[in-house]
Amino acid sequence: MPVMKILTEAELRRIVPLDLEAVKCTEEAFRALAVEGAVQMPPILRLDVPDSRGEVDVKTAYIPGFSGFAIKISPGFFDNPKIGLPSTNGMMVLLSSKTGLVQALLLDNGYLTDVRTAAAGAVAAKHLSRQNASIATVFGAGVQARLQLQALSLVRPIQEVRIWARDLGKAEAFATQLKAEYDFAISVFVDPQKAILGSHVVVTTTPADRPIIDASWLEPGQHITAMGSDAEHKNEIDPLALKRADVYVADSLKQTRRLGELHHAIEAGLFASDAEFPELGQIIAGIRTGRGRDSDITIADLTGTGVQDTAIATLAAHRADERGAGMIFESCK
Amino acid sequence: MPVMKILTEAELRRIVPLDLEAVKCTEEAFRALAVEGAVQMPPILRLDVPDSRGEVDVKTAYIPGFSGFAIKISPGFFDNPKIGLPSTNGMMVLLSSKTGLVQALLLDNGYLTDVRTAAAGAVAAKHLSRQNASIATVFGAGVQARLQLQALSLVRPIQEVRIWARDLGKAEAFATQLKAEYDFAISVFVDPQKAILGSHVVVTTTPADRPIIDASWLEPGQHITAMGSDAEHKNEIDPLALKRADVYVADSLKQTRRLGELHHAIEAGLFASDAEFPELGQIIAGIRTGRGRDSDITIADLTGTGVQDTAIATLAAHRADERGAGMIFESCK
Repeated sequence: MPVMKILTEAELRRIVPLDLEAVKCTEEAFRALAVEGAVQMPPILRLDVPDSRGEVDVKTAYIPGFSGFAIKISPGFFDNPKIGLPSTNGMMVLLSSKTGLVQALLLDNGYLTDVRTAAAGAVAAKHLSRQNASIATVFGAGVQARLQLQALSLVRPIQEVRIWARDLGKAEAFATQLKAEYDFAISVFVDPQKAILGSHVVVTTTPADRPIIDASWLEPGQHITAMGSDAEHKNEIDPLALKRADVYVADSLKQTRRLGELHHAIEAGLFASDAEFPELGQIIAGIRTGRGRDSDITIADLTGTGVQDTAIATLAAHRADERGAGMIFESCK
Repeated sequence: MPVMKILTEAELRRIVPLDLEAVKCTEEAFRALAVEGAVQMPPILRLDVPDSRGEVDVKTAYIPGFSGFAIKISPGFFDNPKIGLPSTNGMMVLLSSKTGLVQALLLDNGYLTDVRTAAAGAVAAKHLSRQNASIATVFGAGVQARLQLQALSLVRPIQEVRIWARDLGKAEAFATQLKAEYDFAISVFVDPQKAILGSHVVVTTTPADRPIIDASWLEPGQHITAMGSDAEHKNEIDPLALKRADVYVADSLKQTRRLGELHHAIEAGLFASDAEFPELGQIIAGIRTGRGRDSDITIADLTGTGVQDTAIATLAAHRADERGAGMIFESCK
């Protein structure tokens, strides 16, 4: 009798907070992607629903040694806010690596994606930014802006936070919210260039489709995590910045060539379409070198990978078992 | 508050039998695929789990005018029978075409796939076989052998059934089972050529990876539905049979060029890789011609399409609403 566990968003928020263990399991997933020859991560399935300005991405990855693998369904329907619904939703299905049976339905409405995306930002900063980085600039004022900052503060001694968002009102509301939660010195910037000046870590979390950061603004020693570009049309960083950086790192080179900031730099003719760059997992595994000097400029290009989904779904199922969370359900053969 | 409906296999078996309405909704899906320019059916996502001889296919399609679209997860883990589990399992998620929100979780363990696959066989026979076809030969003795026969008998006046399977014992057990359920004259054949001789409709449902039907065996007037070839390595029909046929029809030409019987005929050098053939939906819509004469040999090459999944999932959700079936579930924002 096939038995599965159903976990709701509320339960998942309770048992899978954005913590160091979430960062660690994400790090392990990237490492596996680099060193395990048998990791299977097929191209993202993408469905467009043009009549409703909707799109759905399906991601998956099998990591040897993990007892299960996730299939994640991520819809983005951009007219939803007009009727009071969030644009993004979705869920994950965790299947057994041994039998393919459904083990768990994670009805997270996108929450686990938020966590694993932020966790990847922490992994990138941990391996690429300077150890003593204490000033962070965040572009954007949405859920990821907040979570990326939270994740970053898990791995770096952040003391000062700078915020820029296209909508100044949203930036200010975000700053007010952060002040209530953190002891950081927090300020809102109108000029994006000034927001970057003297900053140690810059995280971009916007849906921009034209660069908001100019290559000439970057300073020696800075690390940039660009996580907004997860689709062909998105672009946050001046393509020339990738040329100027000492180290460019992809979460998955196959994906960043097609979707990430790298894609725009290739389109601009700055790199060959098959130009080789290190992947985050290779740096974690010590196969490739990340930051060499304090003065290096490093860029991490994160498009979101199936291994992260498998890692966070596995963590969620493990925690649910430990704490007796979720509803047991028989699909009734 | 996102609300969804959860339906189990037992409920789905009760409310979605293989009936004429299932055939009709499948027919409508193929028609839409041919005539609606805005149908979106991305390539199948395929994940391999080599350590467990497992594979997972994810299929989806958006059909304009349908209130929802399905994302179907189909695992096949071929060591499962050794531990008493079926090889194939899976489920469907039905999402709203308007908002992308999950509307229903159809925990069918592959049942709806069985139904829509058989329904496609009926649609192919309805549009390609002779109206008065009464003798059917089925290759294989599994679930699809039984369902294809049931589907065929919904659209054609079947009176005589011939069975061939590699495992004679299974063929005989299948025949015994059929005799208890139907009034057909039923016989088991050891020689596949004799099983085809004088038959009107031939349905192949095996996992063969080498042809079991020779081109020279085909007779004028016969229709063949090949539904076993849904992966690169599968092959039931002699590639020369496609050359010999008067009409070759694909469920999706993009898919049969890559996965179906056509794929092997292209590999054998019998057709160019971009050779044009009609699709089933075009024949349903009257855009292309199917059987012209009673003496034509017709072949339908069915690899299984996302539009079928969306159609059957929509039917299931509709029937569940009508009959108050399923459990309402809040994913708790």
